[in-house]
Amino acid sequence: MSGRFETRAFDAGGRIGELTVPRAGVTVETPALLPVVNPHIQTIDPAELYTTFDSELLITNSYILHQSDDLREQVQSEGVHALLDYPGAIMTDSGSFQLAEYGEIDVTTEEILRFQHEIGSDIGTPVDIPTPPDVGRERASAELQTTQERIDLATRVKEELHEEMLVTAPIQGSTHLDLRTEAARHADTSGLDVFPIGAVVPLLNAYRYADVADIVAATKRGLGTDAPVHLFGAGHPMMFALAVALGCDLFDSAAYAIYARDDRYLTVRGTEHLSELSYFPCSCPVCTDHTPEEIETMGADDRERLLARHNLHVTFTELRRVKEAIRSGNLLELVDMRARGHPKLLDGYRTLLDHTELLEQSDPVSKDAVFHVSAECARRPEVYRHHERLERISVEGEVLLSEGSPNEAYTETWRVVPPFGPFPRALSDTYPLTVEVPERLDRSSYESAAAGVCTVAAANPQTSFTLAHYDWPDSALERLPERVTVRQLG
Amino acid sequence: MSGRFETRAFDAGGRIGELTVPRAGVTVETPALLPVVNPHIQTIDPAELYTTFDSELLITNSYILHQSDDLREQVQSEGVHALLDYPGAIMTDSGSFQLAEYGEIDVTTEEILRFQHEIGSDIGTPVDIPTPPDVGRERASAELQTTQERIDLATRVKEELHEEMLVTAPIQGSTHLDLRTEAARHADTSGLDVFPIGAVVPLLNAYRYADVADIVAATKRGLGTDAPVHLFGAGHPMMFALAVALGCDLFDSAAYAIYARDDRYLTVRGTEHLSELSYFPCSCPVCTDHTPEEIETMGADDRERLLARHNLHVTFTELRRVKEAIRSGNLLELVDMRARGHPKLLDGYRTLLDHTELLEQSDPVSKDAVFHVSAECARRPEVYRHHERLERISVEGEVLLSEGSPNEAYTETWRVVPPFGPFPRALSDTYPLTVEVPERLDRSSYESAAAGVCTVAAANPQTSFTLAHYDWPDSALERLPERVTVRQLG
Repeated sequence: MSGRFETRAFDAGGRIGELTVPRAGVTVETPALLPVVNPHIQTIDPAELYTTFDSELLITNSYILHQSDDLREQVQSEGVHALLDYPGAIMTDSGSFQLAEYGEIDVTTEEILRFQHEIGSDIGTPVDIPTPPDVGRERASAELQTTQERIDLATRVKEELHEEMLVTAPIQGSTHLDLRTEAARHADTSGLDVFPIGAVVPLLNAYRYADVADIVAATKRGLGTDAPVHLFGAGHPMMFALAVALGCDLFDSAAYAIYARDDRYLTVRGTEHLSELSYFPCSCPVCTDHTPEEIETMGADDRERLLARHNLHVTFTELRRVKEAIRSGNLLELVDMRARGHPKLLDGYRTLLDHTELLEQSDPVSKDAVFHVSAECARRPEVYRHHERLERISVEGEVLLSEGSPNEAYTETWRVVPPFGPFPRALSDTYPLTVEVPERLDRSSYESAAAGVCTVAAANPQTSFTLAHYDWPDSALERLPERVTVRQLG
Repeated sequence: MSGRFETRAFDAGGRIGELTVPRAGVTVETPALLPVVNPHIQTIDPAELYTTFDSELLITNSYILHQSDDLREQVQSEGVHALLDYPGAIMTDSGSFQLAEYGEIDVTTEEILRFQHEIGSDIGTPVDIPTPPDVGRERASAELQTTQERIDLATRVKEELHEEMLVTAPIQGSTHLDLRTEAARHADTSGLDVFPIGAVVPLLNAYRYADVADIVAATKRGLGTDAPVHLFGAGHPMMFALAVALGCDLFDSAAYAIYARDDRYLTVRGTEHLSELSYFPCSCPVCTDHTPEEIETMGADDRERLLARHNLHVTFTELRRVKEAIRSGNLLELVDMRARGHPKLLDGYRTLLDHTELLEQSDPVSKDAVFHVSAECARRPEVYRHHERLERISVEGEVLLSEGSPNEAYTETWRVVPPFGPFPRALSDTYPLTVEVPERLDRSSYESAAAGVCTVAAANPQTSFTLAHYDWPDSALERLPERVTVRQLG
């Protein structure tokens, strides 16, 4: 790692960062989306991506340029920036995608890295092996070995070039989570700059967001916090919030253009076909200026360009929304909202919360936000952290844990608020105990509060505890240890 | 009712309708938002509302015009359409708001209705008594009596005028739900045209969405399905989906302008202050052309106008999104998503589901949609309807209800899918049994499935049932009657 990535604001595992791309002389704010630009077909001019969509970084495929009879010489002589007429930074892919699709490619890591350097790429990529999901451990492990050798080779080539081109260290391992973690640890020590999580596209295509969440979390466990993570091939706005909350910083989208070609319209709730829409559920300039019917009756080229523009607007807007959510401390509320777009996204969200202890490491101590918006919220990092804290609080005598008023008959009275559980009154005004909770709580919140009672009781075995509650469900009360006296209020 | 409201697409309690406003010669598609235009201060010109925002119906206050030294004669001579330079339909309020604010007003129902007629209003309003929430029953009942007398008077005035001006019949009753239902029944027989649910603004200001949901449901129980319902004073896009799903058709917004004056920025997740925003979480033309910083450093007038335009864009876009959701059959998924914006909205959503039997009456029999996106979904109308249907299915012999494969040892094998519960295999391909559910189900889904087993067992007391399940939680298994044999699969 070259110290070229700096993070500033955090929320859950998400962060706002700055990736310095020295060869381009630009600093890209993350989370960022790299539009994929096909050197042969440009639905939206790269210059428009830069000016209208403020996109400072795009990705194109150096293997296509390398193999192209008509473009190779031109890009070698004038450079990729001139070829695409793009003033921002350009990342280049290596042909790994073609390797995955067609089984073989006609270039080595060393050749393609030198070619990328030659054409002026700002971020280059070695030829890794994109092992698909669900393959046996042996194959995943063997192919990972090859990927790692190529990363080591890329490190040497980068040193020899003595140039400022950043180079990526792709992380593979299929759906074997321990291999992903091991791959991440290796990549982290490679001296390379950007860390694409590879070969998740088949999972994304199958909406296997739970598996993606596990893979991202496994990868993050092997990387330093200052490693910029690229979720390679992920460009649908419906899952940006989830992926960012897990710690992804870069995305790339070919979808904006490919979907537009098929009259497909992106939204943060999923994908719609133009012919299915009666109203545009979007406020972007395309959607406020036109009706679905108007666009449907246009010529194919106009239609494709307008849909691609809409797709870009919704994509870049979701990233701004994600960044604003990180800054405001309500990224997980946004994830929660997005999870209601599809049952598989809900699976992804529930899986993200399996990794709450990982997210807790970067989650801010204090936020200015309401958070309790679903049953899932009882598993948020704030609740985890509160229970961790309860393990370290000593209290003596006869303690009343009460949802009601203090009682002088006890040594002290603590407050109890689901989903957190008990806490000394002195903490009442500290986050997260200040958050607003719905009046109609779900059982998981009471059960989580009961778990908090268990924690404080276990941490203070000599102390006597009484819990005074308003009508907690049996499923919560059953969790309490016998030595806690239970009293119903009201 | 004058048969001037026709509904066509339904989803839960929501519908797309057409309100014919004969005096204006326009038909307004609902759900619709009426921008509130202050005759004295127009942040956005009414003509721009019509052309840029496609708003075909606005509301202005006839009492302000009536009391205005400088505008009264002008509006009497040239009419309210010319005064506001607005070619769409105009609804006029009567001064009830001023009555609620200042305790008295200087006009009678008859005077103000005749004045509204004189100035060319397309939809007029009597002076009802906006009883605030939480008042005693006696006061609510007495004031409702007065409101009803004025509705009766309005009916007579409308008949005398022999004109096409529509007239509203406001529904009061404070937070006394039976009074709201009674008021709705009375209004429904009044012969008037549009039904505003009155005096909910204090509840909306306090985010008491649960109470609003109960009030709307109570009102709907007293109205015919062909009555257009106006949730008076509701203009925040964060609650449109919820209110439409309960059966509201019209909204009005002064917020777009008033909030803009205070640098407040509307979103579907709540309200933000401009100074708190680093990124605009919106794709509207204002937000794609500017950064928060740019707008903050503008002069007050430009800033106010741009924020008002954004506020209108986000408001009208949410209504398009709601209409598209109704048409696509995923309105409740949108409500579910919006409920994650604030704990009080979640209370509102959970309260809406208390009225699932009401929503079920208009909910389509078949939809092309995924729906299981939260624990709350186990209480949706589709599940309610499935359980109703189970009560009517007869089955004999020894029946296996199984999450696994059929077993020939039984008379027949039914499938079991949470949250629905059991059903004959022949129904497998019918909605809603075709919907996608998450892999990680919540307990409420299993419990709801168990309730389905209870229903079918109760309906067939002579039949023997065996449930074969994959690892259902105890909270579900405990609900089963003893005579159902339980077998764990896998």
